[in-house]
Amino acid sequence: MKLAKSLQEIQPSYIREILSAASAPGVISLAGGLPDEATFPLALMAKSLTDLPNQTQLFQYGNTAGYAPLLAHFRECYQLPPSHDGIVCTGSQQGLDLIARAFVNPGDSIVMEAPSYLGAIQVFALAQATIESVSQRADGPDLEELAACFAAKDITLFYAVPDFHNPTGVCWSLKVRKKVAELCKQYNVAFIEDVPYRELRFKGDYLPLVSSFCPDNSMVLRSYSKIATPGIRLGLVTGRKDWITPLNKVKQAADLHSSIPMQAVLLDLLQHHEFEQHLAGLRRLYKARYQALIKQIALKLPSYCHSNTVEGGMFIWLSLPECDVDALAKSALEHGVAVVPSSVFYQDSSNITPALRLNFTNANIAKLGDAIERLAKVIKLYC
Amino acid sequence: MKLAKSLQEIQPSYIREILSAASAPGVISLAGGLPDEATFPLALMAKSLTDLPNQTQLFQYGNTAGYAPLLAHFRECYQLPPSHDGIVCTGSQQGLDLIARAFVNPGDSIVMEAPSYLGAIQVFALAQATIESVSQRADGPDLEELAACFAAKDITLFYAVPDFHNPTGVCWSLKVRKKVAELCKQYNVAFIEDVPYRELRFKGDYLPLVSSFCPDNSMVLRSYSKIATPGIRLGLVTGRKDWITPLNKVKQAADLHSSIPMQAVLLDLLQHHEFEQHLAGLRRLYKARYQALIKQIALKLPSYCHSNTVEGGMFIWLSLPECDVDALAKSALEHGVAVVPSSVFYQDSSNITPALRLNFTNANIAKLGDAIERLAKVIKLYC
Repeated sequence: MKLAKSLQEIQPSYIREILSAASAPGVISLAGGLPDEATFPLALMAKSLTDLPNQTQLFQYGNTAGYAPLLAHFRECYQLPPSHDGIVCTGSQQGLDLIARAFVNPGDSIVMEAPSYLGAIQVFALAQATIESVSQRADGPDLEELAACFAAKDITLFYAVPDFHNPTGVCWSLKVRKKVAELCKQYNVAFIEDVPYRELRFKGDYLPLVSSFCPDNSMVLRSYSKIATPGIRLGLVTGRKDWITPLNKVKQAADLHSSIPMQAVLLDLLQHHEFEQHLAGLRRLYKARYQALIKQIALKLPSYCHSNTVEGGMFIWLSLPECDVDALAKSALEHGVAVVPSSVFYQDSSNITPALRLNFTNANIAKLGDAIERLAKVIKLYC
Repeated sequence: MKLAKSLQEIQPSYIREILSAASAPGVISLAGGLPDEATFPLALMAKSLTDLPNQTQLFQYGNTAGYAPLLAHFRECYQLPPSHDGIVCTGSQQGLDLIARAFVNPGDSIVMEAPSYLGAIQVFALAQATIESVSQRADGPDLEELAACFAAKDITLFYAVPDFHNPTGVCWSLKVRKKVAELCKQYNVAFIEDVPYRELRFKGDYLPLVSSFCPDNSMVLRSYSKIATPGIRLGLVTGRKDWITPLNKVKQAADLHSSIPMQAVLLDLLQHHEFEQHLAGLRRLYKARYQALIKQIALKLPSYCHSNTVEGGMFIWLSLPECDVDALAKSALEHGVAVVPSSVFYQDSSNITPALRLNFTNANIAKLGDAIERLAKVIKLYC
């Protein structure tokens, strides 16, 4: 069979492809967006996991929208109004894919910041969308560029990660959030708010969702990979009922529904009285690692390397002088440290600024130090 | 947001939509393709389920193709040659969706028997394929029609369920299997062989897979919903490596990977020394229910109702005289029995023959009797 046209220009995910190389013995990985396995709240999940053999009904076919008690919990916990609904997905990645399949025609224009989440670039490329890039500043997207883009073109949706952006770690300011919501309403652009890292804030105050300023013009994608565990593959999309119903239709064809036993276990975890403590522990740990990484960078990397400061999430963005970031990342892997070059996060290769995405949640402090030491050698060779 | 064009003509699945009505108190459902919960091999899965809290590594992100030990088991168990590969999917439904997304362009022609599996009709409609229908006979597709169709048109793939077809229960004869493989090779048409019911044979001898006669021209979709449990959402696609690789690319965007804890539990189940006994028990139970259903039909339904005989699977096909099958099914639900009208299984509504799909695996023998009693009243009203 010949490949479908939609797939002919899709590159396999650099990150997915190097995960196995990055997990080779001796390699320290700052590449993936992997939480630390040691933080997995399996102790809080143990009771419901061990009770599964007695829960026959969880192993039957279920509703496409999700396990009803979990959906009810989400409705309450996220205070969904009666006009809104949720659908449980096989990871928030599936939520994004369902949105693209339900609302994007080949050739439709959608907006993303540049750089942006690789998995979203893949989804919209598969949907054969025209991706319009808007530059990212320290407090969010460039608002003038965004307004000009919305004014000039017929834009279906604006996809973004406002809380601790992947790959840059940037968190949008309150002012930017309000202004983006206003622009989306003004130009009738749907705002797709992806918030996988929202609960991982270790400094500063929580800011309202962008969607809270345009609830009828937005959908929110949530992930339970960062606060529960990734292996269970569960995410959630919420939004207006007439926008969730089409996702249900696509999901019927895509996988009928997501694992019900895993949904039941997630519900018990989210309702566990120690869950908040678990989150607090995650934040403390990741804050300490972030601070250690920043310190190591200041100590060991040449002064022409600049890392941004972040208030949460899993990544920092290490800006470099002009260099071949792909060759640098390849060489770094050979030197025992896996990182992701900025090139993979740009849909338009003419805009790439040289940088590396560094993850600080998977390796411990000692390893972060070793990783930066190894990286220092490679950077001096390439920059 | 406006619906994508691909979705504008998709109807929600009748079967998924009536599942909740069918599970209302007092209703006996012969509608879904649900296995009997009482048969779920949870006792054989108990050890691995209760051990999950100790298996931290299963809860991390995993490989897109699947949990490596499970893939290794499949390679051995299905005797995949080195030229072939497998990919674990979120149910075999996802496998089918990945195939359509990887290989079918809007407007491409694909072939299915009429009637055919509703979930496949949905997938290919979403892919905006042109669906060519070939009539089904008692031993498989009409070979003359099939050859004429292959000769006249540029066909991408032929999707079929040769073992205990959904919805009719038909099992293709050996002669038809060989001939279909030959035609697929001759006309360079990929054969997509969906075998969710293959292990549910309670009479007669196992026949070779159609794919065994055209291994380089085919892909096999397997489901663990019928022999393990549906709620875990696991299936498998196998085929040539250069056909599996594109599925991996699409799956990266679709959901990254399927639940790893569920994959580990499935592996333990498939390797359990009592698994074969479990399958034998399933076959015995379903055979008894099938025989009871056939007997009740002969006793209680008017003689103008004809049901085919089947040697396995989950369904029989009850042919009726000319009538409004949709109205009949609706009225049956009001009379406390859920069935699926033939109309939902035809892509081309001009070809519909009046019939009902009856499932015999979910309700027990007493309920099957009551169901046919209720159905008899409604049929007499409508036929």
